[in-house]
Amino acid sequence: MTTVLQQAADARGAAIDLAAATRAEKDRALLLMAERLVERAEDIVAANAVDVNNARDIRQPSVGSGVAAGRSDGQSEAMIDRLTLTPSRIEGMADGLRQLAALPDPVGDVVRGSTLANGLELRQVRVPFGVVGIIYEGRPNVTADAAGICLKSGNAAVLRGSGSAFSSNAAIVSVLRKAIADAGLPADAIQLLDATTRDSVKELMRARGLVDVLIPRGGASLIKTVVEESTVPVIETGVGNCHVYVDQAADLEKALAVTINSKTQRLSTCNTAESLLVHIDIADSFLPLAIEELVSAGVTVHGDPRVARYSDDVVPAVHEDWGKEYLSADIAVAIVDSMDDALDHIRRYGTGHTEAIVSESVTATRRFAARVDAAAVMINASTRFTDGGEFGFGAEIGISTQKLHARGPMGLPELTSTKYIVSGNGHTR
Amino acid sequence: MTTVLQQAADARGAAIDLAAATRAEKDRALLLMAERLVERAEDIVAANAVDVNNARDIRQPSVGSGVAAGRSDGQSEAMIDRLTLTPSRIEGMADGLRQLAALPDPVGDVVRGSTLANGLELRQVRVPFGVVGIIYEGRPNVTADAAGICLKSGNAAVLRGSGSAFSSNAAIVSVLRKAIADAGLPADAIQLLDATTRDSVKELMRARGLVDVLIPRGGASLIKTVVEESTVPVIETGVGNCHVYVDQAADLEKALAVTINSKTQRLSTCNTAESLLVHIDIADSFLPLAIEELVSAGVTVHGDPRVARYSDDVVPAVHEDWGKEYLSADIAVAIVDSMDDALDHIRRYGTGHTEAIVSESVTATRRFAARVDAAAVMINASTRFTDGGEFGFGAEIGISTQKLHARGPMGLPELTSTKYIVSGNGHTR
Repeated sequence: MTTVLQQAADARGAAIDLAAATRAEKDRALLLMAERLVERAEDIVAANAVDVNNARDIRQPSVGSGVAAGRSDGQSEAMIDRLTLTPSRIEGMADGLRQLAALPDPVGDVVRGSTLANGLELRQVRVPFGVVGIIYEGRPNVTADAAGICLKSGNAAVLRGSGSAFSSNAAIVSVLRKAIADAGLPADAIQLLDATTRDSVKELMRARGLVDVLIPRGGASLIKTVVEESTVPVIETGVGNCHVYVDQAADLEKALAVTINSKTQRLSTCNTAESLLVHIDIADSFLPLAIEELVSAGVTVHGDPRVARYSDDVVPAVHEDWGKEYLSADIAVAIVDSMDDALDHIRRYGTGHTEAIVSESVTATRRFAARVDAAAVMINASTRFTDGGEFGFGAEIGISTQKLHARGPMGLPELTSTKYIVSGNGHTR
Repeated sequence: MTTVLQQAADARGAAIDLAAATRAEKDRALLLMAERLVERAEDIVAANAVDVNNARDIRQPSVGSGVAAGRSDGQSEAMIDRLTLTPSRIEGMADGLRQLAALPDPVGDVVRGSTLANGLELRQVRVPFGVVGIIYEGRPNVTADAAGICLKSGNAAVLRGSGSAFSSNAAIVSVLRKAIADAGLPADAIQLLDATTRDSVKELMRARGLVDVLIPRGGASLIKTVVEESTVPVIETGVGNCHVYVDQAADLEKALAVTINSKTQRLSTCNTAESLLVHIDIADSFLPLAIEELVSAGVTVHGDPRVARYSDDVVPAVHEDWGKEYLSADIAVAIVDSMDDALDHIRRYGTGHTEAIVSESVTATRRFAARVDAAAVMINASTRFTDGGEFGFGAEIGISTQKLHARGPMGLPELTSTKYIVSGNGHTR
């Protein structure tokens, strides 16, 4: 048995006890995990320094080679910033765990129940999945978040973080495992896989029977690989080519506010708008204002030929722009002749994440909401609201863009399955 | 584009209109489908005769070649019986569609709703998946059932039945498509794939983006193939190695009733018990009775050495017996030294379908229900109760043995996803 499969099997063993743990036991563990992270902050920062120094070493060669290097320099500075842990960031991780302890436990919720005609008592009860695999990139604070969310929902977690954060993640997981054991729950409920090789991802994807569900969190290419190659059931998350559709019956002020906020409030998130579709009948009044405000916010407007007529600042859109998740200060803008054209466009290029309409017409918003096939439809509201925190879920493991099991922001209940418990008195058919 | 992908694309187009159809429109279509099946019963029976004759031709060569042939003869007579359509069986299919019309529509159900602190109105609403692919074996009446369940839940159906029923299925689908169109809904909502080649299964499994979910209904090998090769999300159904555990605190009469009913009420269903686990402390009083009653019901008892001591009728169990879904008059019987041993046994050999405990002890039943990882746990009741009809769901597309999305009998709500609809008034973050 390989190391990965052994770790998955260990997690599976721990999951049996964890599934039977009470809310009180789990909350005690979460609070102890939080306390220990803060106590051991110095060690974690030291482990993190290894990762940060490695990242700086890798970056070094490209420095000083002109404009391109300058840009990559800025990018890697941002990357290093995301990678860096400070005592206050560790305090933030601990806070996240404390908030989880305060949330209700989804396990044991009775989803459906009845007494059948023959007297059998039927209950459909929420139960943990068992073992949840999470593949993620980037920031080490995700490690504590993911471990905490899995534990609270009664699941063992098999974590595969990025190689660049491996030393930090190892330090964090070591502290968390010790805390879990000291709280009387099985330390094996959290497993950190070797992130120095691609093999651990491959093996995790084939660990059907040991791992119940796999959640990839990261860029489109990671998610595509996992979806295509995994035999473990996958929940797809996070790729968002979100559109704002400004209907002919839109209020101009709301349309402007929703457009600007959806695009610029934060550039790099999956619920950021990447495309703007404007009904032809409102283009003359809306587009000059929108383009001006977008450009003055530093956004490059990639427009179709009809959009380009409104401003010299518009860059001609190429075909690839329509399907692109920019995650940058760019937006693709098109004029559509009808709402149905907008719906067709969204159907072709959307990723099923979030689609917004701005309109004062009840008929239009009703039709748009019914016909758009996406996790979330925003009516006169920014696409940026599709978020577990904004929706009031308290914790979020990701935003599902698939239709099976969970769609949209995934909170604790989305990390559970159900079980039918049927009680009789010697009942037979 | 291949024929399969074209049919999937046509289904996708139809799914857009179907998702927006009202319950009244869908029920009208279902009732017309029922009416037309009965009207066209003669044509359907004629098409069915082609399949039945083909099946008889294939069977012919093996007739008259001794014992083996005699057995295969009986098997194929049963197969031909399942394949055969009569006017009364067609009436039964029509009845199924009429019952679907009477069931509530899951689409539009508000699963969760609230007004957020900032005034945004959040609703999580049930929506159809879109396109549901179903791969099934055997009986042609499944065609009408599956088409009806998909239509009622607002989904387009891409059906891949067995080659042996292709002529019957084609006749049924032709009638149903015409009825749907006459009822004002898109005929393309039902697609029947060519069943004369394996390629259609392969292409269906790779039609990610066109087909939203794939449900294989059939034997273990079909399900394994689909699970391993499909890039379309799959809902696993129906393989059941169900256990009855007779606890030391069992009431003997209930234990006997539950055991016999679970095994013999119907042999070939996935919720039939295939294994019996008996606590050592009750073995002396229970096993002689159980073995006698099983044997006199024509069941072959495959027992471990400790079981064999109770009766000469016991056939020694080999290792394969513990993991076998017999679907026949056989049962594997073992003595366990504790409930934990029973739980370990079930964990190792169970398929996560249905597990039963017979016990008068609240502590024992509570522990068993909490620790068994299965779609359904029966407490003092027959495993045969795990069934959409018995649970009162009115319609069933299969019994899911996976934890993602749906677990246990799948009714109409299990054929839906959800969508968040968020209403604001120009809200921004």
